[in-house]
Amino acid sequence: MNFELKPWSEQQLALVEQALSFWVREQTPANLGEVMRYGVLDGGKRLRPLLVLAAAQAVEGNLEAALRAACSVELIHAYSLIHDDMPCMDNDVLRRNKPTVHVQYGEASALLAGDAMQALAFEILATPSEKINPAMGAQLCYLLAKAAGQDGMAGGQAIDLASVGKSLNHQELQKMHELKTGALLKASVVMGAMCGQVNPAVLEQLSIFGEKIGLAFQVVDDILDVTADSAVLGKTAGKDAMQNKPTYVSILGMDNATELAQTLYKEALMALQNTKLSHQQPLAELAAMVVTRAH
Amino acid sequence: MNFELKPWSEQQLALVEQALSFWVREQTPANLGEVMRYGVLDGGKRLRPLLVLAAAQAVEGNLEAALRAACSVELIHAYSLIHDDMPCMDNDVLRRNKPTVHVQYGEASALLAGDAMQALAFEILATPSEKINPAMGAQLCYLLAKAAGQDGMAGGQAIDLASVGKSLNHQELQKMHELKTGALLKASVVMGAMCGQVNPAVLEQLSIFGEKIGLAFQVVDDILDVTADSAVLGKTAGKDAMQNKPTYVSILGMDNATELAQTLYKEALMALQNTKLSHQQPLAELAAMVVTRAH
Repeated sequence: MNFELKPWSEQQLALVEQALSFWVREQTPANLGEVMRYGVLDGGKRLRPLLVLAAAQAVEGNLEAALRAACSVELIHAYSLIHDDMPCMDNDVLRRNKPTVHVQYGEASALLAGDAMQALAFEILATPSEKINPAMGAQLCYLLAKAAGQDGMAGGQAIDLASVGKSLNHQELQKMHELKTGALLKASVVMGAMCGQVNPAVLEQLSIFGEKIGLAFQVVDDILDVTADSAVLGKTAGKDAMQNKPTYVSILGMDNATELAQTLYKEALMALQNTKLSHQQPLAELAAMVVTRAH
Repeated sequence: MNFELKPWSEQQLALVEQALSFWVREQTPANLGEVMRYGVLDGGKRLRPLLVLAAAQAVEGNLEAALRAACSVELIHAYSLIHDDMPCMDNDVLRRNKPTVHVQYGEASALLAGDAMQALAFEILATPSEKINPAMGAQLCYLLAKAAGQDGMAGGQAIDLASVGKSLNHQELQKMHELKTGALLKASVVMGAMCGQVNPAVLEQLSIFGEKIGLAFQVVDDILDVTADSAVLGKTAGKDAMQNKPTYVSILGMDNATELAQTLYKEALMALQNTKLSHQQPLAELAAMVVTRAH
């Protein structure tokens, strides 16, 4: 079967965009909905929703549940960027080639919109539906909460915060990224898989796939922070070096970092092949995109 | 049956404190757990957890689910205080007679700890348990998400933010508070009730009870902001007037505000009696505490 990532992605992302636009309503108290929509609609690579949908399709899972999970992981990702860009964190002014949310709407609105987006992510997963078993909703809430909270993204950001100006070794850097970006990327794959019926061995391999892709994503991010310019990235380039943050490039050097990305990619593909699932192409192509992307 | 609120509350709060201390672990990446514990343990009136537990006992519900719900609503409340106290919001330095979280640990840590606490609230409700039906977990997640997000607390805070220095009428003020503080107080009662099997008519009356108590709470808060001093409140008194925020006292005058609190209290009690439930005393006494409290 000939599978092409571009048309598949475009089709999936149209569904995601439509669903996000439905869930993140414009009509809310004050201008909260407007701020939330600014922060999540029309922008970003949407890698996490694509991983959810590709994994769900690989296991022939419940596509309504998968579309909800896709919106939820993107809302968590988008809220984390809004809070991360605030002056008390990274103090960044450019994101997805637009002024960051706090620059556009003020810090208080950015804080509140982020908070409301996190709540909405769980609301979407838990909203009763005739097509989704409530137990599946609860399980997706659990996976998302673990990936977003102290044992995942927020925990990784806390390590990041504590390590500015410090010298981390490879292992410490990897631990930080496994939590900060890895947990939600891995959860995207696992949540997609949980929209279907999978045996534990397959789930384990998909989980490894998600983990490797999550790490590869960050290694490539660190490489691009050095090699790409801001216009292509859609965010401020060279930020890590400027802030004296440890990166894979600063710790391993450019050549070893590039090699590491390739190794992680191969390990991810191997895990995927081990699943013996028949619809692997979307996940495999997304993995390739992660390591070859230019932004 | 002789019911006394004080020993009942002390017994319930010992359970809540123990459960919170279990869920909000000290051992987390960087010092995130320490910051979260500072923000939620050993402090506050714990009105929301008590409402959850009283409602669950009124309907003879699942007490393990209720204890989880009690921790979750308190975590949402505590995170909202942490974010609300930050310089970009209310910029407050005193809370529960201690320095606020951002004063103690810095703004970035306060932001992250609040974010992680919101995720943890949903994690607690969704964590698999042999004693809790996953469908109940999903339903509790849904109620909490609605109460915390754009249609609840965060939405109310957005209205609050947009109304500083503006003159609101009674109706607009009530709308703001129904969302900002009312939604989570009402959800506490409803979530407790959903830990049992209740018919829709009883649920409706408990929901009205929660709504009236939620509004009465805010009216009394506005009264105390004028009449009490900071040491008794455990937070900065007179803040609303200083910030030129509309309050029930500024809009209705002290006498009418006091009368309104009494009216809401009576309406709450009437709804509670309408339920014909046999274990109403804890809820009734909590309602009385809300209107007679000195802090």
